[in-house]
Amino acid sequence: MSRCIAFEHLWTPDGWLSPGYLDVDAAGRIAAIGATPPPQQRVDEQVAGHAVPGMPNVHSHAFQRLLAGRCEIGGRGHEDNLWTWRQRMYALAQRIEPRHYEDVAAFTYMEMLLHGFTRVAEFHYLHHAPGGARYAEPAEMAWRLAAGARRAGIGLTVLPTLYAHAGIGRTPLPEQARFVHADVDEFLRLAGSLHARRAEHGAAVGLALHSLRAVAPAELSAAVAGAASIEPHLPIHIHVSETRHEVEECLAGLGARPVQWLLGHAPLDAGWTLVHATHLDEGERSGLARSGALAGLCPMTEAMLGDGLFPLVEYHREGGAWAIGTDSHYASGVAAELRMLECGQRLSRGRRNVLADAEHGDPRRLRSGEQLFASALRGMRALGDPAPALSVGSPADVVVLDPHSPTLAGHDTEAILDAWLLSGAADAVRDVMVDGRWQVREGVHLRQESIVRAYAEAAHTLFD
Amino acid sequence: MSRCIAFEHLWTPDGWLSPGYLDVDAAGRIAAIGATPPPQQRVDEQVAGHAVPGMPNVHSHAFQRLLAGRCEIGGRGHEDNLWTWRQRMYALAQRIEPRHYEDVAAFTYMEMLLHGFTRVAEFHYLHHAPGGARYAEPAEMAWRLAAGARRAGIGLTVLPTLYAHAGIGRTPLPEQARFVHADVDEFLRLAGSLHARRAEHGAAVGLALHSLRAVAPAELSAAVAGAASIEPHLPIHIHVSETRHEVEECLAGLGARPVQWLLGHAPLDAGWTLVHATHLDEGERSGLARSGALAGLCPMTEAMLGDGLFPLVEYHREGGAWAIGTDSHYASGVAAELRMLECGQRLSRGRRNVLADAEHGDPRRLRSGEQLFASALRGMRALGDPAPALSVGSPADVVVLDPHSPTLAGHDTEAILDAWLLSGAADAVRDVMVDGRWQVREGVHLRQESIVRAYAEAAHTLFD
Repeated sequence: MSRCIAFEHLWTPDGWLSPGYLDVDAAGRIAAIGATPPPQQRVDEQVAGHAVPGMPNVHSHAFQRLLAGRCEIGGRGHEDNLWTWRQRMYALAQRIEPRHYEDVAAFTYMEMLLHGFTRVAEFHYLHHAPGGARYAEPAEMAWRLAAGARRAGIGLTVLPTLYAHAGIGRTPLPEQARFVHADVDEFLRLAGSLHARRAEHGAAVGLALHSLRAVAPAELSAAVAGAASIEPHLPIHIHVSETRHEVEECLAGLGARPVQWLLGHAPLDAGWTLVHATHLDEGERSGLARSGALAGLCPMTEAMLGDGLFPLVEYHREGGAWAIGTDSHYASGVAAELRMLECGQRLSRGRRNVLADAEHGDPRRLRSGEQLFASALRGMRALGDPAPALSVGSPADVVVLDPHSPTLAGHDTEAILDAWLLSGAADAVRDVMVDGRWQVREGVHLRQESIVRAYAEAAHTLFD
Repeated sequence: MSRCIAFEHLWTPDGWLSPGYLDVDAAGRIAAIGATPPPQQRVDEQVAGHAVPGMPNVHSHAFQRLLAGRCEIGGRGHEDNLWTWRQRMYALAQRIEPRHYEDVAAFTYMEMLLHGFTRVAEFHYLHHAPGGARYAEPAEMAWRLAAGARRAGIGLTVLPTLYAHAGIGRTPLPEQARFVHADVDEFLRLAGSLHARRAEHGAAVGLALHSLRAVAPAELSAAVAGAASIEPHLPIHIHVSETRHEVEECLAGLGARPVQWLLGHAPLDAGWTLVHATHLDEGERSGLARSGALAGLCPMTEAMLGDGLFPLVEYHREGGAWAIGTDSHYASGVAAELRMLECGQRLSRGRRNVLADAEHGDPRRLRSGEQLFASALRGMRALGDPAPALSVGSPADVVVLDPHSPTLAGHDTEAILDAWLLSGAADAVRDVMVDGRWQVREGVHLRQESIVRAYAEAAHTLFD
């Protein structure tokens, strides 16, 4: 039993359809797409305004949402950066109970939906009970994420994360006890068990290696081999080159810069996502672009932590694939992340429309907003679902922009993405559909009140 | 006849009052402020949530709002920057009729109010009819701004702008004909006439010199002398050092960098606002800080035009005064501008909480959000109204944050500004009062529908 939805304006990879329609099957996938439905087909729903695909969010640590706005406190003259922020994150991570983990996930995913993300890859490393004791159900915390995702109605790909060392060759710290498995086998049993039961919990599954600081070369090889035995082409994610300090540690410990080491020792391909990849030399940058791996950029978090700027223009020109993640969730919105990405690039280069200039070919891609948006949609592959957005077989994930938003006032269809993503003080997202079901209507999430209440209670429990 | 308004939480320069109250006189000024009204006083209105002062916006070209989202189009390899953007702005400036100017101003000011600004300094240079013919009423366009400000309900300080040259020693271009007066005397007649009739139009008046590119030294001296004869302490604004190109032009033409030249030749003091001041050497930076003049920073516009980053941390540490402006209005919001300002500084320095670290003294100022907010309030002086925000005698300009906004969920009062300004994907502004009158209720401007409609019609007329 399929459902036919007609849109006033529908974005597709080949251009706007005005009008356009989607035929959505019972599983929430797109069965047909086009300008007008076949004559015999009944239209079940009419949607006014501009509809665009939901955006994949390729990098999230949901519980870190609790820190945004709560650790914007300076010391006096000391260096405050990712590493001092991490101390605060560790202190929080000691205290989170499974019910908090679920409540924060539901809230964080709800915020993503309210601002245009419809799927998320959750880089999940808070595996065990405080102190490192195993939960009776080893996947307890992962299934809490899945429960939070179901409450929010977002598409979840959970990435159980291998975390073995406090730094290259260093044993884990006591405050990392919740993250660490006894060995790669214990970790792969968790990943295998999540994968086997994924349908029951409504989540997709991939795999994450925390970083080259936290995973030794032999562990990385064992985990990658184990991933292939769970499922060929399982998405693999890894944090890399977020700070210069990490690059130096890797040079000292492994004799190579992080991306350089991965290019030489790991089977990088389109199934891999390298998160941040901020500090690259030219060889790493072009090697990464050629590898087909995805760079997972997190512009708001990278700015708020003072990490630095990814060399996007050159990488993009070299054909490199990239997508966006909200990471610590300073601003879980498609427009907020893409705007910060564009602003950082413009500032660092002293010019405008830097990506649009980099593209040769499709004239639509000369528009900065269109270019950013279409490029970031490639993040779907990081979630294990490589079908192009809004095409037959892909999930019916749709974001409808508010025709009454001042942000879009007076704009023609061809400039709607530029207006939404790069102008205005208010986000313009109005309605959001995931897998064919509306989760956000008129700018409000269907379960917003209860999700916000539970999150606020968790925050007060954890911080007061 | 005064009105007493009680707030659940009220920010003051000395700390939060929970509860707090304001007594507002018939002119919309604050007659009293405190924790609890005198026992005999009737409370006229109770307001839930966190109330903070309205923010001054020290730099606006309202009509440029039309360009945001409409010129995010790249070429192929050419340099696209402020100067190519200016060509698009000039093309638009040729076509704007007085009614468009008013409609765009009403819309732009409405957006400011929706996102926390309650007053604006409008740097106004579109004086004459297309081609340069004088309007029958020479102040036609300025009064259109005042009319737009009244429709929006924002506090306006109009700054008629002296614009005399296309560059140092260069006669104006034909496309600048609408900006240029016959001589400084004609310009001063306009400024004097605006000043004389300001009460009738409900606006304050200051004076702007476009830049050292557009105003020659003798013209600058004559205009500054003329300003003093209109009123002592009239606010004076000038664009300066927005790009490296401008610095080079000034070095070649005047033998000094722009701020260096102003420090040597203009009577800079707290009545002056230097807009942008992006590219400073150390001497200019500390000289500007010592002068008492205000740096008018426009973070979103400076990012979107690729201008560069102001050396805020050092300047702030040296006691320099600064405030924010929305300039071309890429995002006319207090949170959007302050967040971009903080992000740019964190990125350029590779660390977090950069301003909070710079402050010695008040422990509240160790919070980044609080520090940014309290500092930017000093922009009131650029509007000619130097009373500290939310103090007796200052305008009753209040912004109330939405207690139900996900952005503020679970936050304590002490971190509310950090949460609003530096976290969340949605702005949290709910209600906005200017001069004691509500203009925004529940996130909607009281005249939003008609203002948006008129703006959209103007945009279609000008661009279709």
